[in-house]
Amino acid sequence: MAKDLSIAILIDFYGQLLSERQYNVLDMYYNQDLSLSEIADEIMISRQGVRDLIKRGEKQLAEFEDKLGLVKRFSDISGGIAEMNCIIDKLPKSEEAEILKGILKKISHTTDL
Amino acid sequence: MAKDLSIAILIDFYGQLLSERQYNVLDMYYNQDLSLSEIADEIMISRQGVRDLIKRGEKQLAEFEDKLGLVKRFSDISGGIAEMNCIIDKLPKSEEAEILKGILKKISHTTDL
Repeated sequence: MAKDLSIAILIDFYGQLLSERQYNVLDMYYNQDLSLSEIADEIMISRQGVRDLIKRGEKQLAEFEDKLGLVKRFSDISGGIAEMNCIIDKLPKSEEAEILKGILKKISHTTDL
Repeated sequence: MAKDLSIAILIDFYGQLLSERQYNVLDMYYNQDLSLSEIADEIMISRQGVRDLIKRGEKQLAEFEDKLGLVKRFSDISGGIAEMNCIIDKLPKSEEAEILKGILKKISHTTDL
């Protein structure tokens, strides 16, 4: 079972909608990088049980994204912000350019994936 | 029961996470602007039943926003886009300014609330 890093992003976005148990298992696996066996020891179920919980959690996260599409929307916005930063750097120095940079910085915190 | 327009935004964002019945009732009430009695006739339950479904749906939507905060995040981004548009309009005309306007336009479709 290869760890898919895009799952970590889905956990960030939709993790709060999972049950606490499901969230904890995914968090241990993807964010804390524990192995299946380590998680099994931690929550005292079988390794296969952990694997099932992870698979079910991943499926739920994917369903949330299918329904809401928010990771896609935020990532489109992040792309736009990066493009704009490059372009503003090419503008002649001005007060306006500085203000634009400031706003982009603020927005990019909001879209942090 | 006064209709709260911000609920319509929550329905847009999180409606797909509700049950079909709950979604339909909220959609009829907030988006199609039907009255409680009209909805009651439509789905053949009591007016009080409709009221309860709406209240429960609103509560669930508010919980989704509490947990995910995405409407807040998107609305912060929309505010930033509006500010940037004003500032870019004050810049001397240039190819860069035009490109920035184009990117902002694309992003603002993505953040449509």
